[in-house]
Amino acid sequence: MRVDENRVAELLKAHDNILILTHMSPDGDTLGCGAALCRVLLSNGKKAAVVNSDVIPDKYDYLMKGLPEVDFEPEFIVAVDVATPSLLGDKLSIYSDKVDLCIDHHPSNSYYAKEVHVTPNDGAACLTLYRILKIMDAEITADVAGALYTGISTDTGCFRYSNAGAECYKAAAELIEAGADNAWINTRMFENKPVAYYRLMPEVFKGLRLFADGKIAVFKVTYEMLEKSGAKEDVCDPIAAMARQIEGVLLGITMKQKADGSYKFSLRTHAPLDASAIAKALGGGGHVRASGCAVTGDEEEALKKVIRLAEKQLEEK
Amino acid sequence: MRVDENRVAELLKAHDNILILTHMSPDGDTLGCGAALCRVLLSNGKKAAVVNSDVIPDKYDYLMKGLPEVDFEPEFIVAVDVATPSLLGDKLSIYSDKVDLCIDHHPSNSYYAKEVHVTPNDGAACLTLYRILKIMDAEITADVAGALYTGISTDTGCFRYSNAGAECYKAAAELIEAGADNAWINTRMFENKPVAYYRLMPEVFKGLRLFADGKIAVFKVTYEMLEKSGAKEDVCDPIAAMARQIEGVLLGITMKQKADGSYKFSLRTHAPLDASAIAKALGGGGHVRASGCAVTGDEEEALKKVIRLAEKQLEEK
Repeated sequence: MRVDENRVAELLKAHDNILILTHMSPDGDTLGCGAALCRVLLSNGKKAAVVNSDVIPDKYDYLMKGLPEVDFEPEFIVAVDVATPSLLGDKLSIYSDKVDLCIDHHPSNSYYAKEVHVTPNDGAACLTLYRILKIMDAEITADVAGALYTGISTDTGCFRYSNAGAECYKAAAELIEAGADNAWINTRMFENKPVAYYRLMPEVFKGLRLFADGKIAVFKVTYEMLEKSGAKEDVCDPIAAMARQIEGVLLGITMKQKADGSYKFSLRTHAPLDASAIAKALGGGGHVRASGCAVTGDEEEALKKVIRLAEKQLEEK
Repeated sequence: MRVDENRVAELLKAHDNILILTHMSPDGDTLGCGAALCRVLLSNGKKAAVVNSDVIPDKYDYLMKGLPEVDFEPEFIVAVDVATPSLLGDKLSIYSDKVDLCIDHHPSNSYYAKEVHVTPNDGAACLTLYRILKIMDAEITADVAGALYTGISTDTGCFRYSNAGAECYKAAAELIEAGADNAWINTRMFENKPVAYYRLMPEVFKGLRLFADGKIAVFKVTYEMLEKSGAKEDVCDPIAAMARQIEGVLLGITMKQKADGSYKFSLRTHAPLDASAIAKALGGGGHVRASGCAVTGDEEEALKKVIRLAEKQLEEK
């Protein structure tokens, strides 16, 4: 059932022993949401905890600092920024059909929870949550502000992308005034690249491929490249945005190989291309401008399929 | 004479035939300021024009679109975002001692104008100007909003750096509501990299040098590298920020060679290092976190001097 923000605020106020689920391969938005919500619930005297199927990358440590483990029987289960049950990952898959409330901003949300509040126009789920916390009259401490700012900043490419509307900027200003250390957070999220990054990137850049008269650009990061450079996997995060940054490119594809040999594709588009539709055709999902999918089987065949789908969109639009 | 924003508003209202000077090697802040101010003056029925010593890079075309050439005898000369007369460049050097009003945000401003309004706490001169335009009750058209947004976004690294305070975000929200096309502007300013960029960067990255136990990082871009890659000079703009992005680095130095063989150094720091003090010692200037200087003579000797100065700061702090 689709519910509005007032209903979400009511539900969160009415329940206790709240388990907050975040999506696998966690990012700043899902963890920012989880941490902010958890802190507000705790300071309202409730029991709450944030869980994830994966190991949380070090750079997000500050979000989770001091948050409790699950030491209660969950009475109410909330998923934040989780578009589909498959994104809960292995460990949390036991909750797939038990989610009471989903707060999300992905247009690809599959409405798997009992009550769902989805805001496709919000640049980040943290912006959606911030609106809800205001309705709840929650105290926005510096920690809560920092968590919400993190989600808004990371999901909008630090306020760079088309999903950063005026409301994102307004919220950011308020959160900075409430104590979010924006410079520190952005340094941690977007800078702080290990030296290995600069060993990896020449190899990645040299492999640049262009298709469709330069409208499609592809970077491929093999696991061997990663290993040789000594870079950890999350070092690749910024690469996803780079293929689209090339002049004239409307679809940027980053093919990233995992340790098991399989690939994950990240798709980034400029108008009029729809990354979400392409990703969906390959079993993935996301936003119009930023989507992703896991590829099983031959990655070059999958790439051809992506290119064909994009060319078809270009012909039609 | 130091003057406040009310006096600036008065001066701009009282005068006509206003010539607006911007700094050489123009960036989004000086041009955004110039364009926004010029458009407001024109729509108030005055004569005004923006001038620069250099050719304006194509990516800023939209700022200058439709602005008139100088077809009047200047009665009042305003410099925007120009910290010292030397930054006016050759063509505008004739105005060095004739500037009536300077609107700037550089702490290194040399107070060369008759009346000077400097706001070192503002992330961009466009933020300072926006405050003044509000006092003037100026109409913020979409073009004016776009110009002001451009300056705020470019000078704060798209709202990423420590100089992006809450006021920058608030202003951005208002300017977007007034019609600034933030996504389009940011794509144009920060993305849209030519393919040549990806030919250049592997060479630049491979030359990474670290000093002072990894606290100082250096990238060197020779003119030969530029020529070989086919990249234009302004393609190097993003490199300036990259050396500081390395984990543990407090001073990032980018050495960029010009066609005449001489070098320009860009210095970017994290606390506690002061880029402005180092640049000043080499005859340059700027901000605490971002400064620059032109190097005459041996560039490697100049680099050693920069490193010594930085190490001395590290010992003292």
